[in-house]
Amino acid sequence: MQNISELPTPALLVDKTAFEANLKTMAGVRPGLALRPHIKAFKSTAVAQVLADAGHTAFCCATIKEMEGMAAAGLGNDLLLANEVLDASRLGALAEAGARVTLAVDSDVTVAAAADGGVKEVLIDVNVGLPRCGCVPEDAGRLADLARSRGLNVRGVMGYEGHLMDWTDRTKQAEQVALSMDKLIMAHEAVGGDVVSAGGTGTFDINHAATEIQAGSYLFMDTHYAKVGLPFVEALSVLSTVVSVDANGGWAVGDAGLKCFGMDHGNPSVDQGGVFFCSDEHTTLVEHDWAVGDRLRLRPAHVDPTIAKHEVMHVCDGDEVVATWPVDLRHW
Amino acid sequence: MQNISELPTPALLVDKTAFEANLKTMAGVRPGLALRPHIKAFKSTAVAQVLADAGHTAFCCATIKEMEGMAAAGLGNDLLLANEVLDASRLGALAEAGARVTLAVDSDVTVAAAADGGVKEVLIDVNVGLPRCGCVPEDAGRLADLARSRGLNVRGVMGYEGHLMDWTDRTKQAEQVALSMDKLIMAHEAVGGDVVSAGGTGTFDINHAATEIQAGSYLFMDTHYAKVGLPFVEALSVLSTVVSVDANGGWAVGDAGLKCFGMDHGNPSVDQGGVFFCSDEHTTLVEHDWAVGDRLRLRPAHVDPTIAKHEVMHVCDGDEVVATWPVDLRHW
Repeated sequence: MQNISELPTPALLVDKTAFEANLKTMAGVRPGLALRPHIKAFKSTAVAQVLADAGHTAFCCATIKEMEGMAAAGLGNDLLLANEVLDASRLGALAEAGARVTLAVDSDVTVAAAADGGVKEVLIDVNVGLPRCGCVPEDAGRLADLARSRGLNVRGVMGYEGHLMDWTDRTKQAEQVALSMDKLIMAHEAVGGDVVSAGGTGTFDINHAATEIQAGSYLFMDTHYAKVGLPFVEALSVLSTVVSVDANGGWAVGDAGLKCFGMDHGNPSVDQGGVFFCSDEHTTLVEHDWAVGDRLRLRPAHVDPTIAKHEVMHVCDGDEVVATWPVDLRHW
Repeated sequence: MQNISELPTPALLVDKTAFEANLKTMAGVRPGLALRPHIKAFKSTAVAQVLADAGHTAFCCATIKEMEGMAAAGLGNDLLLANEVLDASRLGALAEAGARVTLAVDSDVTVAAAADGGVKEVLIDVNVGLPRCGCVPEDAGRLADLARSRGLNVRGVMGYEGHLMDWTDRTKQAEQVALSMDKLIMAHEAVGGDVVSAGGTGTFDINHAATEIQAGSYLFMDTHYAKVGLPFVEALSVLSTVVSVDANGGWAVGDAGLKCFGMDHGNPSVDQGGVFFCSDEHTTLVEHDWAVGDRLRLRPAHVDPTIAKHEVMHVCDGDEVVATWPVDLRHW
């Protein structure tokens, strides 16, 4: 058993107690197949295996590489690529090899790509308000017909209300989610199928249209999501060592820099004092009396791109490292 | 020979013509050992080999992993770790195995770490204005004496004027660099040795105190540095495919998201139209008539963390891929 004091820094840590609490909280509301965990949040088959062991055996992916890695790990029971692709041949090969592969489509071109690539099943991706992928709801039925005409099994619809994930007024958020999901319900009526795949960590308990919620961040959380008031707790941090201290007491410098963190939501946070700024391989810390050699944990502002920057996560029970999970589904 | 149209996307591209122009421009001002290229910018021994072939055979690293990788690649002729560490044993092992290893020190603790770890040579790291590592200039002589008392060869000083890198008024910038370097010169007088290591891409031509400039970004550049008015050109981009287009013409979606880009300086840029926002695996594009299947190049806002997110860089001569450089020195 290794103590975290023995880990070279920077090192990505997962607090086992917090992680397991998050797993349990979600499973209480969205048990088994009512959750389709989103692999993009953590890009790790080890984490996926924990989810499968907890009864969540259908998964959502964002990249072809994630799909391939999940299938190779024996977790290909029901894999959805919740994203459009123009070359589905690698996905067709996965299906041919025995994985259940479902692909999102939102246009004539992507329906053709699915069929041409040898994919057998699709969801019609419907735009429900986020300016990103998805057809207009009114076109969903036509696309489903087109897909069926190409021999594809249309399992249903998906739509991601990503613009509604981080509202702090949860009553207003729930109203907006319902309006957003009205579009998906309308599309579903035209499309048919059993699946209405939607939602995420921020709407897991208020999206009542979805037959399955696409959430992943909830397992680890971040300082951005932590502000929303969800029943999940921060489990992720980057362990850093103080390597330099200003002689005049103005600041200290930790050895975990912005290459350790997803920075799109801003700087990481620290419990003692504050973060002044991050450089590539350093973080300048202020308003605390750090000494050279001190170790601290920085909590990231955005979980997904943070984990994607690391090769492994160290799972810690207190200060003991009890497992090391490879982040094996990174890149493209 | 592969055409970039055959590359799966997202893919990191380096424009060969721009890269070679940058290499040549810098070498004209800072030939050979007057430049100590900073590996942290690109984390690739393939790029380092190009620099060594151009006469820059001494290198600057930010992490122990970079030091180890450079030595293993036969590029350990003169490696500086321009960073403080508390456990220098891996560096001592490199020196023992024949690499020339120099380590930055800025405190009693880091001097002791260098000596205890078996490192033989150090630079005294001096704070010259950036709130990060480095001793106060007045303490440099004492630290040099301490280092020598521990048997370390003190090669000189280093100091990074990182707070002055991206000024657009280059006359005022030069004045501030001179004031900053006055501190380093004062420290150098107390320390002795042949080396005054300082500077970066933004001050390569106006830092007249440095015997060697620590620059790496200049080879690739980014949209942030491009605003400064330096004689280097943007060579780096991420190739992306449009996978979805809003039926109402409001936006289009590319398959390169924020996991492809260093986001601490903001969104990437595109020549046609604009970037609305980046998601994990998508970028929403506006103000241009994109079609599904179109390919585009997104130029990152910050080079170092962008390259660190990719496994390889594809070097392109026009649209032909002429080399693929592994980004083999990532992580810690």
